[in-house]
Amino acid sequence: MTTIQDVARQAAVSVSTVSNVLNGRAYRMRPETLARVEAAISALQFRPSKLAQQLKTGQTPLIGLLVPSMTNPMYGYIAREIERVAQEQFGYRLLIGSTYRDRTKEGAFFEDLLSHGVRRVIVISSLADERHFESAVERGMVVVSYDRGPTLGKRSKVAHVMPDNFEAARLATAHLIDKGHRRLAFATVAGMTMSRSAKIDGFHAAADAAGLRASAQVLDGGPLNEYGDSVIAEVGRATALQIARAARRATGIVALNDLMALGLMAGLRESGLRVPSDISVVGIDGHFLSALSNPVLTTVQLPIPEMARAMVARVMNSHPDAETDDSEKVFAPTRLIDGESVAPPPAPLRSRPAKTGSAGIPT
Amino acid sequence: MTTIQDVARQAAVSVSTVSNVLNGRAYRMRPETLARVEAAISALQFRPSKLAQQLKTGQTPLIGLLVPSMTNPMYGYIAREIERVAQEQFGYRLLIGSTYRDRTKEGAFFEDLLSHGVRRVIVISSLADERHFESAVERGMVVVSYDRGPTLGKRSKVAHVMPDNFEAARLATAHLIDKGHRRLAFATVAGMTMSRSAKIDGFHAAADAAGLRASAQVLDGGPLNEYGDSVIAEVGRATALQIARAARRATGIVALNDLMALGLMAGLRESGLRVPSDISVVGIDGHFLSALSNPVLTTVQLPIPEMARAMVARVMNSHPDAETDDSEKVFAPTRLIDGESVAPPPAPLRSRPAKTGSAGIPT
Repeated sequence: MTTIQDVARQAAVSVSTVSNVLNGRAYRMRPETLARVEAAISALQFRPSKLAQQLKTGQTPLIGLLVPSMTNPMYGYIAREIERVAQEQFGYRLLIGSTYRDRTKEGAFFEDLLSHGVRRVIVISSLADERHFESAVERGMVVVSYDRGPTLGKRSKVAHVMPDNFEAARLATAHLIDKGHRRLAFATVAGMTMSRSAKIDGFHAAADAAGLRASAQVLDGGPLNEYGDSVIAEVGRATALQIARAARRATGIVALNDLMALGLMAGLRESGLRVPSDISVVGIDGHFLSALSNPVLTTVQLPIPEMARAMVARVMNSHPDAETDDSEKVFAPTRLIDGESVAPPPAPLRSRPAKTGSAGIPT
Repeated sequence: MTTIQDVARQAAVSVSTVSNVLNGRAYRMRPETLARVEAAISALQFRPSKLAQQLKTGQTPLIGLLVPSMTNPMYGYIAREIERVAQEQFGYRLLIGSTYRDRTKEGAFFEDLLSHGVRRVIVISSLADERHFESAVERGMVVVSYDRGPTLGKRSKVAHVMPDNFEAARLATAHLIDKGHRRLAFATVAGMTMSRSAKIDGFHAAADAAGLRASAQVLDGGPLNEYGDSVIAEVGRATALQIARAARRATGIVALNDLMALGLMAGLRESGLRVPSDISVVGIDGHFLSALSNPVLTTVQLPIPEMARAMVARVMNSHPDAETDDSEKVFAPTRLIDGESVAPPPAPLRSRPAKTGSAGIPT
């Protein structure tokens, strides 16, 4: 790679002369010298290092982006939207990392960002504890946290942008209740994050409003393994087997997210249960892949492009010292996308066929 | 952010004294001074900037990764595998960008990488023209290109790692032929890339071997829009409608990749055609999402983890000046994953029912 020394040698001038040209301080230079330096820069295809500029300004045009796993298509979608806004509006690029919701990996990523001079970070984490974010803020970073709110009653310098998870789950559940479902389940994974608990609260609120709390259950399909979100579909599949084996099973299921809903539908099918005639399923996300499922998944759409714009705006325009306890932005789900995975519940089996009478005639 | 000046001020020493401590040149320092500097570094949570070190070494521990689109789940998977090897084996992180297979965007990304001091780049592009890669190599970058080979007969400093696309498509096609299919189609998108043309060649080779070239057609579902790969499923859907309307339609389809196969299956279903009883579909990729489809997609699995390891090893261990015309690594598909989307072709319709005779009795 060409260095400033190479240019100086080629132009037969000192390094500081080249530096003067690069920094617009050529006004006292002889035109012949300036021309020679410019010719050398051009011939050697020299680009002044942003690193040197960054050393002075402390600014690197990169946004750090932490996601639980790049293999979860929902995070790929969010990352794409963040990248688009960052690139088009600010000329920033993404330094990305998968952290598998592991605190040690998150901490290591922050250390690396700091040492790269990256000052602006968007974190998709949902870890209940965000002390390591606060510590990054203390050291001069601007941190925007997606999909989790600030700890109640605590002032924080971490900004929060999140979907209204409560409302998304409430909407999904109310849709099932509207279709006549009385036995409801919310399918989730092991481990409580803020977004998961908000969704469970929304599920319970809808059940409460319909007087169905007693028959509304939360099903935990087990933990995620080291790869984090890429196996969430497998957890959905495991939950389906659990549902299929239950004596008095739910007829309407809300899934934690679309990927889990897809796994759930695959598992139900393997268990010989039909969606939606035996069991109805609603997802949360509205990812484009869900429109390809068979049956097409009914799901609550989250406003990802709007949230991405809000996150980038916040991370680019904030001063690290700003207190942000009033800067949470909560985005309501845009709508319920009515697919094919919800139908009225199956008619209850008659408890026992009558011993006598007009057998075979429907009542 | 704490600077070396802050540390010097806190310790009441000169900046060069702090620098000496940071660079292991404290052997002539008074122990009391060393202790004061170390205490200041600790109290201020100072981390020496990697930027300064990078200026000297010209090395930034980042790998640039260009993908057509982060929303294509296959690229999320590849990116995750590349990140894992880069991080675990070399402590490198990824500077990632979606380029939508647009040459201008690819060029701009290379410029930014250069100015960030990033010297190692993995490119998933498939653009037929890679002159801008060669130009990056001229300027000191190590470039590994995924999913395309070098231009025949040209020496190149760009290394190539790719799946055996020919063999993957040949395998998929041969599977359909084995099941009895005689009318075959390869579903692709508009625009020819090296990997696409290798797949089409493999499709034709299998058809030729079975004497079926005359009934093997390539269907082009149309161009991708600005988002590149995220809409490839929609192109698959459009192709399905084209197939459904055809007078004498193919009974066995090989799709360019899994995402297109999923769109194809959704479109066939919308057209009232059943997979696999009316039409069989085989994908290429073996992505985990394909195992969730209904019916489960039969697909040829590409060895992504192995290819990721090869790419990272190549990009980390190479000297930019090495000629790499003998460094192409081609990875054969690992296997055909037998799903549910392939069955024998439907029995041909009898040309015309007999006017008289034992109507209704199956023959």
